[in-house]
Amino acid sequence: MKRAGFGFEIVARDGAARCARLTTPHGVVETPAFMSVATYGAVRGLDPLELRAVGAQILLANTYHLHERPGEDTIAKLGGLHGFTGWSGPWLTDSGGYQVTSLADRLEVSERGVSFRSPLDGRTRLLSPESAMDIQQALGPDIAMVLDECVPPRDDAPDHAARAAAAHTRTLRWAERCKAHHHRPDQALFGIVQGGGSATARQESAAALREIGFDGYAHGGLGLGEAREERRALVEVAQAELPLELPRYLMGLGRPVDLLDGVAGGIDLFDCVLPTRHARHGALFTSQGLLRIKNTRYRDDPGPPDPACDCPLCTNHSRAYLAHLVHSKEALGARLASLHNLRFYLRLLERARDAIREGRLDALRAELDAVYPEDAASD
Amino acid sequence: MKRAGFGFEIVARDGAARCARLTTPHGVVETPAFMSVATYGAVRGLDPLELRAVGAQILLANTYHLHERPGEDTIAKLGGLHGFTGWSGPWLTDSGGYQVTSLADRLEVSERGVSFRSPLDGRTRLLSPESAMDIQQALGPDIAMVLDECVPPRDDAPDHAARAAAAHTRTLRWAERCKAHHHRPDQALFGIVQGGGSATARQESAAALREIGFDGYAHGGLGLGEAREERRALVEVAQAELPLELPRYLMGLGRPVDLLDGVAGGIDLFDCVLPTRHARHGALFTSQGLLRIKNTRYRDDPGPPDPACDCPLCTNHSRAYLAHLVHSKEALGARLASLHNLRFYLRLLERARDAIREGRLDALRAELDAVYPEDAASD
Repeated sequence: MKRAGFGFEIVARDGAARCARLTTPHGVVETPAFMSVATYGAVRGLDPLELRAVGAQILLANTYHLHERPGEDTIAKLGGLHGFTGWSGPWLTDSGGYQVTSLADRLEVSERGVSFRSPLDGRTRLLSPESAMDIQQALGPDIAMVLDECVPPRDDAPDHAARAAAAHTRTLRWAERCKAHHHRPDQALFGIVQGGGSATARQESAAALREIGFDGYAHGGLGLGEAREERRALVEVAQAELPLELPRYLMGLGRPVDLLDGVAGGIDLFDCVLPTRHARHGALFTSQGLLRIKNTRYRDDPGPPDPACDCPLCTNHSRAYLAHLVHSKEALGARLASLHNLRFYLRLLERARDAIREGRLDALRAELDAVYPEDAASD
Repeated sequence: MKRAGFGFEIVARDGAARCARLTTPHGVVETPAFMSVATYGAVRGLDPLELRAVGAQILLANTYHLHERPGEDTIAKLGGLHGFTGWSGPWLTDSGGYQVTSLADRLEVSERGVSFRSPLDGRTRLLSPESAMDIQQALGPDIAMVLDECVPPRDDAPDHAARAAAAHTRTLRWAERCKAHHHRPDQALFGIVQGGGSATARQESAAALREIGFDGYAHGGLGLGEAREERRALVEVAQAELPLELPRYLMGLGRPVDLLDGVAGGIDLFDCVLPTRHARHGALFTSQGLLRIKNTRYRDDPGPPDPACDCPLCTNHSRAYLAHLVHSKEALGARLASLHNLRFYLRLLERARDAIREGRLDALRAELDAVYPEDAASD
């Protein structure tokens, strides 16, 4: 990475997979890395100290939610995301585009940007490439994302192909405008590959983004219904067009096996709400597979949720106590389960980094595929 | 206290107020002490380590809730409240009577006990003096409470006086049955003074309970609409009948000034849901009075919620961040605010203990009355 204060140094490889040190103005991230999602500037009831203790290196915040409340100006005045939230390590923000299109009403996408009615005050607003940059430059994360238009790979509407193609080319024009409007020297800017379910469009998108030139690249619009093999192929074809020496990020995915698929395909960064969302429903990722703590068999179980886990839940509490907390809707249950699931994800990436260094990523993937078979209801 | 493993040693006095060391099989409680309420066996999203860190010495669990779920047999099998929850310090449980009468349907109070329809499975159950003892002996707290019938001091129903008198005398008969049925040697049993708004009834109740003989005594049925002065008088008349050398507990109260009223009247133990309930609504007890964090004036405020407070919220976060979390309904907001309010209550009792030792409790009360004037909306 050419930007001052940033660096991306690849330290080991295993096939297409790589281990690297991503340096940012707020610290180093060992990659491949999982970014915990702090939607409103906090990871679901967890504080920065305990996130650090379970191995979190970098957090992701949702630009759209923070723009609505408390607003980027307030956050900027209070020291940006780092000062405002107390997480002083690296931050990444999304562009807000995905949240707007999934949450807002009266959506209209035009060349100017995305206009929508705010669910908060009912007023119409415009999220443009320029305003997406302004907001993220005010929020102050270490890494900002371009505004993109996401069209799912699968869609039965008759005009799907035309819409996907239009979105893909518009996303490229928006990417140029984002780059032109991005001035903050201490913030990296990543481009986002789109193209729906078309390998050709994804390849074109990646090549065009590389031409524009970003500090890193992401794959967007995946994990939206396409099959695992299809996704791997769509990522692979785009990866081939992206510069090897820069970080790549697979947005919004996913299950543990999806992460290792990505790692094997040369992805460096991941984020997903699955660990915290599953935790709130009492579903725990463990070394023996998914454990649904509400199952009556755990009612009297004195053992730790996962005997192989070193998180505060598994170190201090029984399955029976967690089951009771979750059944009682006591907030401590969701908190401890979230911490556990994040520890599982963060530990999984630690293990992936070790495996890459030791040339045994395939063995780790085979182990995980056995514990989390494709047909298991893990999402 | 004559029971093995227990002790109550008064170490300082200031008027009727006293500082003591209450020894239990699971540790010593410096009194006067505030007991944090762990309704379902956890204090609203907080874990044992952080409770200990803000000065918690003893927790209170609700017998009725734990009886409904997961059931006292499950908890007994898993090491009682101490083993089940991970809070290895002292525990006190209420008798379940108050929760039954406030939460359950089809309530019928007879000499046998309280019959009610369980909100969980719709079946009719009976909570009798004997079953209240069985449940608490299975739960295993250090201190159990007798089953009582609570009639509020104020009630406009024409038969109020007759009902209050009947409840008061029945509560005494139940107290005898509780004592006869209580066999666990490592558990103290406290009697509960009732008598509604009648000073005579409360005096009789206290004298009769002393005659039966308990390890400690509580004042029940207060904080239910009566005026502050009226409550003080009702407590005082009963206190005069209770043995000076045993612990006294004012149940369910209250605001900071109510706690110091109690301390001045010789009360040793308190519990109240107010600090955690207020926290969930964004109301913070501070050294400068009640702070409602949702007020727009705190939106940009970079200062700590209470500059005089040493809790994790005030040490690490701004008013603006807390306001944002509470507005966003992010779980971390309620958690940090709960921890703060508990710290305020626990610190207030620390200060009361210091004041008693130094003979300046009146000065502390005057200071608190000025910061929390009677007419302020603090409940």
